[in-house]
This record gives sequence, structure tokens and C-alpha cells, in this order.
Amino acid sequence: TCPGVDRVVPILAPYKIASRQTHPEPSVIDLGGRMKVKVGGKKVCMMAGPCSVENRPMLMEVAHAVKEAGATCLRGGAFKPRTNPYEFQGLGEQALEMLAEAGEATGLPVVTEVMSIDQVPVVAKYADVLQIGTRNMHNFNLLMAVGKAAKPVLLKRGWSATLNEFLLAAEYIIQSGNPNVILCERGIRTHEDHVRNTLPLATVPAVKRESHLPIIVDPAHGTGHAYMVPSMCRAAVAAGADGLMVEVHNDPPHAMTDGAQSLTLDGFAQMMNELRAVAAAVGREM
Amino acid sequence: TCPGVDRVVPILAPYKIASRQTHPEPSVIDLGGRMKVKVGGKKVCMMAGPCSVENRPMLMEVAHAVKEAGATCLRGGAFKPRTNPYEFQGLGEQALEMLAEAGEATGLPVVTEVMSIDQVPVVAKYADVLQIGTRNMHNFNLLMAVGKAAKPVLLKRGWSATLNEFLLAAEYIIQSGNPNVILCERGIRTHEDHVRNTLPLATVPAVKRESHLPIIVDPAHGTGHAYMVPSMCRAAVAAGADGLMVEVHNDPPHAMTDGAQSLTLDGFAQMMNELRAVAAAVGREM
Amino acid sequence: TCPGVDRVVPILAPYKIASRQTHPEPSVIDLGGRMKVKVGGKKVCMMAGPCSVENRPMLMEVAHAVKEAGATCLRGGAFKPRTNPYEFQGLGEQALEMLAEAGEATGLPVVTEVMSIDQVPVVAKYADVLQIGTRNMHNFNLLMAVGKAAKPVLLKRGWSATLNEFLLAAEYIIQSGNPNVILCERGIRTHEDHVRNTLPLATVPAVKRESHLPIIVDPAHGTGHAYMVPSMCRAAVAAGADGLMVEVHNDPPHAMTDGAQSLTLDGFAQMMNELRAVAAAVGREM
Amino acid sequence: TCPGVDRVVPILAPYKIASRQTHPEPSVIDLGGRMKVKVGGKKVCMMAGPCSVENRPMLMEVAHAVKEAGATCLRGGAFKPRTNPYEFQGLGEQALEMLAEAGEATGLPVVTEVMSIDQVPVVAKYADVLQIGTRNMHNFNLLMAVGKAAKPVLLKRGWSATLNEFLLAAEYIIQSGNPNVILCERGIRTHEDHVRNTLPLATVPAVKRESHLPIIVDPAHGTGHAYMVPSMCRAAVAAGADGLMVEVHNDPPHAMTDGAQSLTLDGFAQMMNELRAVAAAVGREM
Repeated sequence: TCPGVDRVVPILAPYKIASRQTHPEPSVIDLGGRMKVKVGGKKVCMMAGPCSVENRPMLMEVAHAVKEAGATCLRGGAFKPRTNPYEFQGLGEQALEMLAEAGEATGLPVVTEVMSIDQVPVVAKYADVLQIGTRNMHNFNLLMAVGKAAKPVLLKRGWSATLNEFLLAAEYIIQSGNPNVILCERGIRTHEDHVRNTLPLATVPAVKRESHLPIIVDPAHGTGHAYMVPSMCRAAVAAGADGLMVEVHNDPPHAMTDGAQSLTLDGFAQMMNELRAVAAAVGREM
Repeated sequence: TCPGVDRVVPILAPYKIASRQTHPEPSVIDLGGRMKVKVGGKKVCMMAGPCSVENRPMLMEVAHAVKEAGATCLRGGAFKPRTNPYEFQGLGEQALEMLAEAGEATGLPVVTEVMSIDQVPVVAKYADVLQIGTRNMHNFNLLMAVGKAAKPVLLKRGWSATLNEFLLAAEYIIQSGNPNVILCERGIRTHEDHVRNTLPLATVPAVKRESHLPIIVDPAHGTGHAYMVPSMCRAAVAAGADGLMVEVHNDPPHAMTDGAQSLTLDGFAQMMNELRAVAAAVGREM
Repeated sequence: TCPGVDRVVPILAPYKIASRQTHPEPSVIDLGGRMKVKVGGKKVCMMAGPCSVENRPMLMEVAHAVKEAGATCLRGGAFKPRTNPYEFQGLGEQALEMLAEAGEATGLPVVTEVMSIDQVPVVAKYADVLQIGTRNMHNFNLLMAVGKAAKPVLLKRGWSATLNEFLLAAEYIIQSGNPNVILCERGIRTHEDHVRNTLPLATVPAVKRESHLPIIVDPAHGTGHAYMVPSMCRAAVAAGADGLMVEVHNDPPHAMTDGAQSLTLDGFAQMMNELRAVAAAVGREM
Repeated sequence: TCPGVDRVVPILAPYKIASRQTHPEPSVIDLGGRMKVKVGGKKVCMMAGPCSVENRPMLMEVAHAVKEAGATCLRGGAFKPRTNPYEFQGLGEQALEMLAEAGEATGLPVVTEVMSIDQVPVVAKYADVLQIGTRNMHNFNLLMAVGKAAKPVLLKRGWSATLNEFLLAAEYIIQSGNPNVILCERGIRTHEDHVRNTLPLATVPAVKRESHLPIIVDPAHGTGHAYMVPSMCRAAVAAGADGLMVEVHNDPPHAMTDGAQSLTLDGFAQMMNELRAVAAAVGREM
């Protein structure tokens, strides 16, 4: 009489070391750096910064502003996976240097995307957290490569990945030697045409039940519209997410990438105030 | 440089009287009954009750329990749309009588589904709110029929409806004469297989921007799993929803329908306590 | 070692009288009329005509042209389900009269949509086949109403219906007393944005395996683009479909509805020639 | 009055060298090898073989059998992308050697998947065609790497890729220096649960209109069920596909991977006979 219930906890989940059955306590991932930021504990981690590192001044301005407003991790794209080969592909190692400098100046650990195996060393040299993007969640060779790196990994869910596939991608990383995996729900492809992606926040309780790994939410990519981001950030925190990732820009209308979903500096600061109240209401801190 | 932004506010939205452009103030819908329950104001409306009305004692027990815990509206199925013609189809008018009695006893307004034009008079006789289910969101003749009824309408989003189609379905009701429409996001069909439906909470800010109509969320159908319901209720309130609809049963494992997604009486009461804190954090009441 | 195989033939399919297990021989449905057109036999049925009946002259012109080119059934909309309440809703009974006249003049049986229970008698009076549209596949009360009518029913798949739900909708009709059900695959809602719907032709072999009912394909709604229709018609016949439904207009750019997916008269005649060769290659006739 | 038509041919398609606008004639790709097999011409290419190369005898048996039945290219997995890290990952270079031997023995060119940049040289050493799998369609660095290889590339569509993204992935390969790209539709992720993927054959006419590149169809992955494969192969040929890719095994129930969707040797030979008739009906050869 309870259809569906037995689909939630499989007798033999194919994921093993990522499973809550083998590791009942939630994992807390240390992002390193001066501030000892952790993901998976009481404090909700806020990862903020520009979609792309466009130049040194804009990055420094955004980094200081988000730090000031309460962010605990700096995000920024150096290697950009772009659907269109003729569009801006990121500044590469130059951007990594700027990110490291901004991280140093603000004390924020830095998260940035690594797109291929040969980029792992250089990204790991400058960044504190290696991000695997949506397009690479099923790139098993890359998963195994970051599984051998010494830095934590932020693993974004694939556009059409099932929960099972998402957790098995984490398993690939962990079984390669790296237990420090943070999951990130960033929206899936559906028929909805008023959003860039559909953001399924039920992934949060599902991951909490199935796995010990922390789960964060990216409402910028998850919706594609800046005006929806504060509402979905509040929802994610209320749902129990361990962190958030958002895009912040000092001049969104002129952003080189993802301007439509980027918050302004003021918008971010205002949102952080709202989020503190929601976090407190569910026994968390921000 | 801002892709997608102009998709959000169309120059000429096809929906007119449902649009915020023609009615900038949010609508507040009066559900009627002794308690003067309203949807769309500061207070978040909680609609709770069994999936199906199974018999008089269980309905009365659940109705009193949810009222006690803070529900402001009683839900319960009398005419049940069932995929399988051989399954329980609801008790019909008998259930409507029980619902009216339970509404009278608790003071809660009653919401229940109407499946066809010929059922409108009898449902409107006993219930305070007429529910149009997911399967009938595109049933335009039924929309026009409830548009001529004197009771408010709760309109559930279709499984694969776009936002535009959802608001145009509301437009059908309003232009038939009934301005009292409450929208309900209840999940969409996607590739996800760990949930019954995918619950896109970004519908809440989208509707708030596009329309003056109140929007509530149904996390029971939106996930299919009782363990996800409290998390998604908190998220919906934090996102700005004007109300919630959940299924509560005194004995979920033996429920005739939807047991897997029904809360127990205690589970509901505990969830209400959590929701009050979240509502307060976003300037609402519960 | 064969994942998925046991999902194909459930031990106890919830559909009974629609199932091949209880009725191993394929059903052949007689559409009635002078021409004794049948669906489900060796001859592939071609249902063609305008999306909407716009006026008498255009209907007669199209009806004679499609008859001439080899169509075996005339389609045309009298009651039109429109997403937008402010758009053309069809000419109603006036259109039904014209359809009956065109059917009489050409000898073609007529199929047209019925949108609500109260329309069943008038549609059954004029038409040979009652069409249930995509939006009403889950409208169980309407299914039961056409299940009591004396005319065959063309049941279109819902936008997000599973195969199981599709066959159970047929079951509703059959168990209400009407065994003459023709299924129609017309495309589903997905993330694809270069088509109006995604047309899953694998529904044809799946239905053939699961059920004895004939299955036809509607590539006009299934793609939304006239240029794709001939290709998808050929594919459907090669896949084993028992029939096709297409939209044909004497002046597609000025059609009141669905012009983009309507074939011209010449385009239809040319396509019929191609289809005859494909039908012969798979042992069918056209 | 023609909604959707202008979506089909964008004024400025973001894909350039993959576009039909810059290259009106269809491309014909030479697969090399003794048999001078071409994809994109009058003859429909049939790529057949086991999902995984399991051992030398089974590969040789299957290779000779498919050659005998009319296949024009041998497929077989050496590096297998597996969702579950604990499942069989392929025999690697050992399998490549066997494939080369089987190709030599039968005269069939060999296509096999390359999963990472570092595998490109070894795969290009043994194989005639480099396959990019579904999971790597968005792996831009890998696309650029095969774009520098001297062998043709078979590019499978991503599970949730749009047509635009699919053609831009081809653009990445071509603009890196390799014009020999064959596209492959292999099904998308949708809500359908009676198939492993939903196979949208309308991709065939869409690609033909938008691009000069040849397009083939993989109904094995596109449906997940062997019983659907012949029907969907016939449909793909009738729709105008330039080739097919199927899985054939000498003992499907004991296949190490994808047994449920693999044809038997006899099943394949029988299907080839049917396909010849369909190909002839649409002016092609098999």
C-alpha cells in the first residue's frame, strides 16, 4: 500500500562508500585556507563570485564585496565550458592567478572549474576546491583524475542525471582516493520554458537520506534569472542544503557570461540578510 | 548580453486579467466559512487532510487533528481521478457530506476536487473551494464551468503545462466570471526516478512576477514521499508561497490512496512547528 | 543480465481488456460509412484534412483533394481546445454539419474531436469517429462517456502520459462498453526546442506488444513543422503503424490554426506516393 | 500565422562550418579501410557488433556474422563508460587489438569509443572511426582533441542536448581541423518509463535541413529493448537516416553489457532483409 517507498532505500544501493548505509554520520568537508571553511556542518556555506573572471579589478571588487556581505567561498570561472566554440572561453591560467590573489586578499577559499585531466594540476595549484561542471558529471576519466588530487571536489549534477547516477559519479571520485566530495544540485533539463533549467530542491532531502556527503544548491544556473535567485536561495536553506553557489557581478548587464542570472553587489548583500533569518529558523547559521 | 530576461515579461502576455500588468496588487482570495480564511495575505494557508475520504471516523479524527495543529483548510477526496479504472474511485456525494460535516465541526473551509461539469453543482453545494486537478488543467470546458460557480477555485498545474498554459487556464476561469482563483504547483513529469514528480519551486517567484493570483504548493504529490514533505514545505514557505497542501492520514500504511506521501498526525503537528519559524523568518505567519 | 526486459510485459498488467494477454489477435476497427474503412488490418489508414473547419468551400476543396490523393478518412476540427481563451475556438455544430456533408460527398468517414460530455451526442450524430484529444486523455469522465457512445473512438496520448496510463485510458473506454478504440501517438513534452513535441515512434512496437488495439501516428502535432511530416509519416509506416493523421490545408500560410504543420494539397499528394512504396516494403497497403 | 517556422532556420545559426548554409551539398564521409565504406551517400551504412568486446572468439564470430548479413562497419566497445564504477569497464587496448584483427579479417572498418584525450592516439591507431559517446558530447576538450585526429568521428547526441548544442559540438570538432563528422541520434532522457531512452527520429529531417553532415540512428540505446530495434531501424531508414548502429551478440542473455537491447545473429540477418526493402522504397541501398 505504500508505492514508491522501497524505491528510496534500495536493498543494495550500487553506491557504496558514498552511501549513508556505510557511513551514517554526515561528512564535513574542509575547504582549507585561512578561514577553515567547512561544508556540511551547522554553518551554511555561501560560494559567491562572478561567472567568469573577466579582469583583475572586477574580480577584486566582487571578491571583497561578497566577503564583506558574508560569503565564505569565492567562485569564478577560469576555464569556461561554452556551448558555442566562438564565444569567450575564459582567461585560463591568468584567471587562476587572479583568483588565488583574490582568495589571499579576502581569506576566502577559491572554487573553480576544471574541464579536463591535463588541467587538474594547474587548477589544483591555484584553487582550494576543484569544480566538476554539469557537462562533465559523466566524464568518468576526469572524475577519477580529480579523485587522485589533494583538493576537495565540488561535483555538479548532470543536466539529465538520475540521483543514482549522481551518487555513482561521487563514488568514482571517492573510490579513486578522494573522500572530500561536495554535491551540487544545479537544475535539470525539462519542458519548462520560463526558466533556464528546472531546480528540483527535493534532491536535498533525497541526498541527505541516501548519502553522507554534503549537498549545496546553485539557483543561478538552476533558474537562469536573477530575480528568482533570492527566493530559491531561501528555499534551499529552508530545505536543509549545506551551502549555496551564486553568481555576483559588479555590472550584470555588461557581464561577459551569465549576466541575466547574476546578482548585483547590493542585491547579494540584501539577500544574505534574508538568508540569515531563514538559516536561524531551521537551526543553521549563515 | 542578458539572454532570457525578455522571456520573463512578454511585451504582450497572452493572459490578460490574470496578469500582474492589469492588476498590480496581489489578489487575496476569501475561502469563506466561519474562520474567514484568506489565501494571498500575510498568513500562509495550510490545507491538510486525507487523500481520500475513506469513512466518517477517520475523516473526523484527521480533521480535528490538523485543525488542532494549525491547519486552516480541510482537504479530502470525494471524486478521485484514478489512472486505473479498477481502483477505488472515491465515495462521491457521501464523502462530500462527511467533508461538510467535518468542516462544520472544525470550522475549517473544505476543498475537494471536481472532475466533470455535471459534478460542479453538488461539489459547490458541500465544499468551500472547488479543486481542478492536474489531469484537468487543460479541460477547458470544465474550467469555464467552475468559472461560472460561486465558489473559489484551486487550480493545479498540469503535469507538463508551461507557465504560460497554467496562467491561461486561470484566465479561462476568470473570464468566465470567477475571479477567485488560487494556483497550485504540484510537480511536473521529468526523467527523475527517485520522486513521483519533480517539484519546481521557482514557479512561486515566477507566478508572483507574472500574476496577481496567489500560489500554493503541494509537496505531497510534488515528491511522492512523506519523508520529503516537511523539507519541501519549509522550502515553499521560504520561497514565498501563499499556502501549502499536504496529505495527512491517521494510518498511512493502510491508506486507500497515496499512503506513501501522507504524513502521520504527529508528523504533521511537528512540521507545523517548524513551518512557523520559517514563516516568521520571511515575514509571514502560519 | 537483461535489465529492462521484465518491464515490458508485466506479470499482471493493470490493463486487462486492452491487453494482448487477454485478446491475442489484433483488433480491426471498422470506421463505418460507405467505404467500409478499417483500422488495424493490412491497409494503412490515412486520416487527412484541415486542422480547423474554417468554412464550407475550403473544407470541400481539401476533402476532395485528400480523397483523390488516397486518404481514407477525413479529419477536421469543430470544437477546438485552445490554450488561449481569446483565440478561435472552432465553428462548433456548424462545422460538424459541414464535415458530415464533406464525408457524404467524398465517401470518407469523418473524425473530429469531442471536448466534453455534453458534446458527445452532437458529435456522434455527425461524425463517424469520436476523437479524444491529448488534453483530455486523463479526463476519465469523458472517457467513460465516449465509452457509452456507439461510434469508434480515436484516443490521443497525453503530453506526459506513460504507456501504462495511455493503455489504462483505453481501458476506461472499453470497460464502459465501447471496444472500438484506436490509439494515436502524437508526441510528448520534452526539453527539445526545435520541435513542437517529441515524437516517440517506439510507441508503435510497444503498443503492438502490449495491446491488441490499433495504433496510428500524428506527425503534424508530433513535430509541429510541415517539412518534417513526410519523413515522419514514412517512418511511422515503416515502424508498423496502422494509420496516420495529418493536417492538410489549401493555403497553409493563412490557416486559422496550425498552419506551420499543415501540408499543402500538392505536398500531401506527393507524400502519398512515397508512402505507398514504404507500405509495400513492409507488407502493407496504403 | 506560422508559429515555429522561423525557429527552424535561424537568421544567424551559431554553427557555421557545420551549417548547410555554408556548405549546401551533403557531406559524404569516407570511413577508410579496404571496403571504401562511405556514410552520407546513397548506401545506408550499417554499423553492427557487440556492445563490449568480451573476448576474441565472440568478437570474431559476431564480426563474420554481421559482415555476412550485410553490415558495412564493425562496432565494439573497448573503453566502456559505465555509470557504476564497480561494473565491467571494457578490455581496453586488448579489445582494440581484437577489433583491428576482426576488421582486417572481415574487411569492415571499425568504430569504437574514445573516452578521454589520452586515449585518442591508441584508439586512432587501431580504429577507423572514433566514437564520442553520449556522456561526452559536452566534453569540449575531448571534442577538440578528436578534431585534431586523422580519423573520422562519430558524435553521439547527449542525453539532454538540444539540436543546437548537438550541431555546435560538431562545430567544435570541425573547427579543430577534422571535417569528417558523422552525427548519431541515440535517444534522449524523458519521462517515458517503458523504454531506456526516447528515440526522436525527427532529428533526421532536422539535421538534414540544418547541416550537411550525415546522420545515423542507434535504436539499441534509443529504446533499450531488442524487440523494438528492427521496427525503429526500418523507421530510421524510411525517415532518411544515412546509417544505423545496432548491437549484435552471439548470446544476448549472457552478454556482459546491454544484453537486453542486443540482437541475435539470426535476428540481425532477418532485420537486414527487411531493411533492404525499406531502403529501396526510399531510393537508398543497404
